[in-house]
Amino acid sequence: MKVSPTYERNLEIHLHGPGPSDVPGEVLRAMSVTTLGHLDSEFIRIMDETQAMLRELYQTKNRMTIPISGTGSSGMEALVANLIEPQDKVIVVRNGVFGGRIADEVSRFGAEAIPIDLEWGTVVTPEQVREVFSGKNCQALFLVHAETSTGAHQQHMREIGEIVHRNGALFLVDMVTSLGGTEVKIDEWGVDAAYSGTQKCLSVPPGLSPITLNERAMEKLRGRKVRSWYFDLGMIEKYWNEGHQRKYHHTAPVNMIYALHEGLRLVLEEGLDTRFQRHRRNATALQAGLEGLGFTYIVRKQNQRLPMLHAVYLPEGVEEGRLRKEIKSSYNIEIGGGLGKFRGKAWRIGLMGHSSTENKLYRLLNAIGEVFKKYGISGDGAAGSQAARAIYQDTES
Amino acid sequence: MKVSPTYERNLEIHLHGPGPSDVPGEVLRAMSVTTLGHLDSEFIRIMDETQAMLRELYQTKNRMTIPISGTGSSGMEALVANLIEPQDKVIVVRNGVFGGRIADEVSRFGAEAIPIDLEWGTVVTPEQVREVFSGKNCQALFLVHAETSTGAHQQHMREIGEIVHRNGALFLVDMVTSLGGTEVKIDEWGVDAAYSGTQKCLSVPPGLSPITLNERAMEKLRGRKVRSWYFDLGMIEKYWNEGHQRKYHHTAPVNMIYALHEGLRLVLEEGLDTRFQRHRRNATALQAGLEGLGFTYIVRKQNQRLPMLHAVYLPEGVEEGRLRKEIKSSYNIEIGGGLGKFRGKAWRIGLMGHSSTENKLYRLLNAIGEVFKKYGISGDGAAGSQAARAIYQDTES
Repeated sequence: MKVSPTYERNLEIHLHGPGPSDVPGEVLRAMSVTTLGHLDSEFIRIMDETQAMLRELYQTKNRMTIPISGTGSSGMEALVANLIEPQDKVIVVRNGVFGGRIADEVSRFGAEAIPIDLEWGTVVTPEQVREVFSGKNCQALFLVHAETSTGAHQQHMREIGEIVHRNGALFLVDMVTSLGGTEVKIDEWGVDAAYSGTQKCLSVPPGLSPITLNERAMEKLRGRKVRSWYFDLGMIEKYWNEGHQRKYHHTAPVNMIYALHEGLRLVLEEGLDTRFQRHRRNATALQAGLEGLGFTYIVRKQNQRLPMLHAVYLPEGVEEGRLRKEIKSSYNIEIGGGLGKFRGKAWRIGLMGHSSTENKLYRLLNAIGEVFKKYGISGDGAAGSQAARAIYQDTES
Repeated sequence: MKVSPTYERNLEIHLHGPGPSDVPGEVLRAMSVTTLGHLDSEFIRIMDETQAMLRELYQTKNRMTIPISGTGSSGMEALVANLIEPQDKVIVVRNGVFGGRIADEVSRFGAEAIPIDLEWGTVVTPEQVREVFSGKNCQALFLVHAETSTGAHQQHMREIGEIVHRNGALFLVDMVTSLGGTEVKIDEWGVDAAYSGTQKCLSVPPGLSPITLNERAMEKLRGRKVRSWYFDLGMIEKYWNEGHQRKYHHTAPVNMIYALHEGLRLVLEEGLDTRFQRHRRNATALQAGLEGLGFTYIVRKQNQRLPMLHAVYLPEGVEEGRLRKEIKSSYNIEIGGGLGKFRGKAWRIGLMGHSSTENKLYRLLNAIGEVFKKYGISGDGAAGSQAARAIYQDTES
């Protein structure tokens, strides 16, 4: 078999799907630094810095803030394996694919998932949460902060946190797509444990799942025989044991941690507020552009739309797969198809982290406009870019 | 907090511990190639090639030969979660730390681990396996092919495979340290499922666990509700579905797979036989060198010693930690301390993959010799290198 190295291939892409997003050169460069041993004092310094930076992003003081050695969903499994016990009752908000995945996970670990089933594209209200708790003894509530299948942005986080705690339960949150792209306030919202991924708004290649757990959550797992060796946080904690003796658990993914370290450094160099503002501004422009081209949003309420992920229905009668393929092959731009019940009907367009810039947005809207024009879908292929440009001019003045 | 990028730091190391091993420049370069989407057709080609190359290394035709998205131990968890059912009886050979880890894992998944407890540094015999099966109904036997805590190299693989199958059980093997450094013959030995790591003899950074399962193993998991979402091989199989529609499970660790792809390419470019021969030759020289310096092997039988991992007792009265630290700080060489019951008494010295060369071996032996001399441990610090040199001269002629 003749195999050529990846670095001799012409691999070019602009990533505007639901993740991974474009990775900055600095992060790719960090990945290719000499591999150190997983107990090397220099590597331990990099681990400590990574934890400290992650806490800033999560806006938490939680000591247990570390990357799990797997992709985003491994963080979900780590939380469930450690915090959910067989026979527990766990409320799971199901308003998209990822809520459904959590309910599946919970039941695999022998607990009962009590779903709050919502129309996809909506979010849960504090009233609905209060209602489902009433008369039941539930140990946790799980929801998705940024639902990547619908583009829905969960609101009322602090209020929901209070209701969950009043019922003596743990508040567990999927922040895979939100971390680094919009506000995430673990301590202020009373989130007991959360997980994220590296390949969305952190613009680091996929491969790690940053998690954070407060003392209330850690209390729950101490002394338990966790039904996973790989994700046993009691053991993993002793390896990520800042300022103390480190106890080997598994060999850390050293170069991926370099990449995360660099990605976090770039986020904090930009500043969280500046970064969120950038995501919002480009989101407003993209929305104007997409609406100008005839797209409509799955999420109907403006304040429940995510800035980094736009899930939109195509104009009537458009064959989505063929157009998406053409945008990929002619413009090297990747956008995502609909997931779950939106398959074949919607696109998922990402402006995440390094992929969220004014220039990249024009390139994207131009490509869609030109393909639309070619297939006679929109009268004026430039309508999208013009609408976006108007937004930028407005917000400049 | 002031954090500097990893690529501006002076991170230099020669890795001669139990893994990670030195990573070749080509692999680091492959890691820093543009991140593609996990369903991109170019990336799918890279996945296909990775699978094909992994099959060559594992010497198998198994269709289900893929890297799990986690470090070496995640492969162990994937096998147990998918192939072991609660109430199963699983024979586990415990002749070191990693056999103990497997027994722990098996019990976490609700099965009964039936240990064959052996003196550390020995391997199991076919007679012992036959005996433990007799009169019991066991569903699997698990052993470690290359025990990284003792340096023991399991023999009799084919015979043991036959006994396991005669008893209707699955033959499951940890090949974390052996793959790419010594012969591994999945099909010929009748191994039903195995897992490995990337950071040992493949000389790829830690982060993936290549696994292989035959149809007999796959039959066992089909239709089961696996007690893990992240490691559900029935679902993961649909993503690594060569030649067919790919179904998204979790976002693959794209750049880590580039690295594995390049590491495998380099292994096959060298050729398996040449590579194994290189490991053996350098092992013989290292053994002569270490014995010349007064070390003795934990594994007493010569034919049960691993070529890539030398676990050795230090000469009487040597304070291992202080010396190991000095070798690190003065020579930038990492070697491993004893694990488990060998802590404080032994060293684990690796000649794995890219770390196994004649030049690196001299640098290593010289460093140990000089430190020994400095602390007055060995009369002649050069004894090790001289003994190694004699071996190379012998094998050249």
